[in-house]
Amino acid sequence: MPAVFPADSVGLVSPQRLAFQQPLALACGRQLDSYELVIETYGQLNSQASNAVLICHALSGHHHAAGYHSVDERKPGWWDSCIGPGKPIDTNKFFVVSLNNLGGCNGSTGPSSLNPATGKPYGADFPVITVEDWVNSQARLADHLGIHQWAAVVGGSLGGMQALQWSISYPERLRHCVCIASAPKLSAQNIAFNEVARQAILSDPDYHEGRFQELGTIPKRGLMLARMVGHITYLSDDAMGEKFGRERKSATHNYDLHSVEFQVESYLRYQGEEFSGRFDANTYLLMTKALDYFDPAAAHEGDLARTLSVAQADFCVLSFTTDWRFSPARSQEIVNALMAAKKNVCYLDIDAPQGHDAFLLPIPRYLQAFSAYMQRIEV
Amino acid sequence: MPAVFPADSVGLVSPQRLAFQQPLALACGRQLDSYELVIETYGQLNSQASNAVLICHALSGHHHAAGYHSVDERKPGWWDSCIGPGKPIDTNKFFVVSLNNLGGCNGSTGPSSLNPATGKPYGADFPVITVEDWVNSQARLADHLGIHQWAAVVGGSLGGMQALQWSISYPERLRHCVCIASAPKLSAQNIAFNEVARQAILSDPDYHEGRFQELGTIPKRGLMLARMVGHITYLSDDAMGEKFGRERKSATHNYDLHSVEFQVESYLRYQGEEFSGRFDANTYLLMTKALDYFDPAAAHEGDLARTLSVAQADFCVLSFTTDWRFSPARSQEIVNALMAAKKNVCYLDIDAPQGHDAFLLPIPRYLQAFSAYMQRIEV
Repeated sequence: MPAVFPADSVGLVSPQRLAFQQPLALACGRQLDSYELVIETYGQLNSQASNAVLICHALSGHHHAAGYHSVDERKPGWWDSCIGPGKPIDTNKFFVVSLNNLGGCNGSTGPSSLNPATGKPYGADFPVITVEDWVNSQARLADHLGIHQWAAVVGGSLGGMQALQWSISYPERLRHCVCIASAPKLSAQNIAFNEVARQAILSDPDYHEGRFQELGTIPKRGLMLARMVGHITYLSDDAMGEKFGRERKSATHNYDLHSVEFQVESYLRYQGEEFSGRFDANTYLLMTKALDYFDPAAAHEGDLARTLSVAQADFCVLSFTTDWRFSPARSQEIVNALMAAKKNVCYLDIDAPQGHDAFLLPIPRYLQAFSAYMQRIEV
Repeated sequence: MPAVFPADSVGLVSPQRLAFQQPLALACGRQLDSYELVIETYGQLNSQASNAVLICHALSGHHHAAGYHSVDERKPGWWDSCIGPGKPIDTNKFFVVSLNNLGGCNGSTGPSSLNPATGKPYGADFPVITVEDWVNSQARLADHLGIHQWAAVVGGSLGGMQALQWSISYPERLRHCVCIASAPKLSAQNIAFNEVARQAILSDPDYHEGRFQELGTIPKRGLMLARMVGHITYLSDDAMGEKFGRERKSATHNYDLHSVEFQVESYLRYQGEEFSGRFDANTYLLMTKALDYFDPAAAHEGDLARTLSVAQADFCVLSFTTDWRFSPARSQEIVNALMAAKKNVCYLDIDAPQGHDAFLLPIPRYLQAFSAYMQRIEV
């Protein structure tokens, strides 16, 4: 419990809930007549509204990106290492906006919200949301906040896809696009891992075709498995080896089919169980579908350079050497397309052993490069 | 249906069932008072019994490694590309023995066999079997067949671990050890994937703590997920990309949470379903545990060279460039230890895009190298 928050923390923060009454048309052909978004902001919007930075979250992220909700909160927001006074996204300079995306399970309208048409939770009937839909909803959010143009849109992983989509959907509404540990589309292997996670949830008898909330159950087993699979892909083989190796739980083997023998098993079970208690199964399915569908170049016969030719932003692309979920080669596809489209792009492949998770971690070289880029942004 | 079998096929083959009455002590501290092994043999044992080759199978393998059980059989045995007249394991030269390992589900004594003590299927009460136990049971099999010394013990993946263990447990009973796409022990990531597969099975309500057979159910969902995860690790990212890319099932997206959108999803579901209909869940758990426990160097404080110093065999180690389940680096750990222990070792890292699955496939460079090694063996 930090009695006093660290000097480089944004300190105590409170989420806000914003209601949007104008219908939002979605890529799936359906629409949301109205919806709510939960957001947090850090720093002050300047008088020209030219210093706003949008944070886009990844698969299991949310609006609470920095600071603390109370003095009792044990851990700060999920990207606290990158957001705060003097940090890469410097709140002395920038007004930072972070939201829980539509379809989420941390307060914004999603599968666990009540469907006004039925008075019951949406469940699996919540419309499938795409990265483009999120960006459209975020543009409405910008309107609401009086932000015509973001100084930067920033995100890692699925968040980086949103940042990229911003530069295509609303080229004049961002000056910088920061795309970290991301990819221009999923590979077959990426989709395959998502499919395993989905099948784990869908085949859990407690999923009840997505109506588990109405029935007072939770597909915990499915969510746990989904998270365990996901977690393996977030860590590099080396990082997992460094962290756990073949370290045993006890000196001798149990020699049965169900006991935990190795530390890595214990870690994965814990991660899975913890997650299954706090995350919504339908949201998990939605997020994996949004990842699968993302493929902006499909509109131009797979030509990413042509797709990005409309962009007006400058780009910063970062990858991590041991990331095998979205490997450096995937970031380089983006960089190559941007160069072919004659855009300004900075690219750095950061030597880091932590795998995909690196984008969330306070790695000095990463923070330094990220800071250097953000410091150059004029507001 | 091959009306006539191919000229380089061993043709029609029949499994044999062998009963062993002498108790087998196991690493877990328990023993099997008696057990049966199902085997197949191809070729003729010579008068000196000096031309016998043992085939050790991998996780989901069995005794049917080559040829056909009937003229109606659609596909030959699982390693037919490597076993037959003129093939790497040339049945004109060698007498080939292939078995279903203890704990298996293809006829040898395993979890679905009746426990003589209770008259019910063993289920999860079948003792946990280690690679060492398998090798001990295979030594008994050799005794039974009158084979004092194998010309070679050969295996891929988990089968390669058995071949390696033979060279340590019974150094004088094999002249050559062929270890393909294997590893001297699992990494934390390998164990993590196994743990996901196990949790998928254990958490399936139809698993019933392993007594599903008594209760007339099958934990199909768990087995399906386990196989799906496994399958991803058998293919390289590139191979999956080549095979499926982002090819869609239909021209338009369904935009729901459960439909198959991409070919790779359809493929994985098919693989998972097909497997769940033919494989025993307790055997799957046993096989993953045997993989996890395998660590022969643990007996010598992790010093693999010291562990292998007792070996008398010559070694052939093969790996595949895109195998990320057991990467070439893992084979090179074995090779380096063998060199440090001053053993004769041939090593080839074969350039192949197929990932771990490559060891089962008729890749010309692989068959050529494998043949060249086997041809040099004196019988």
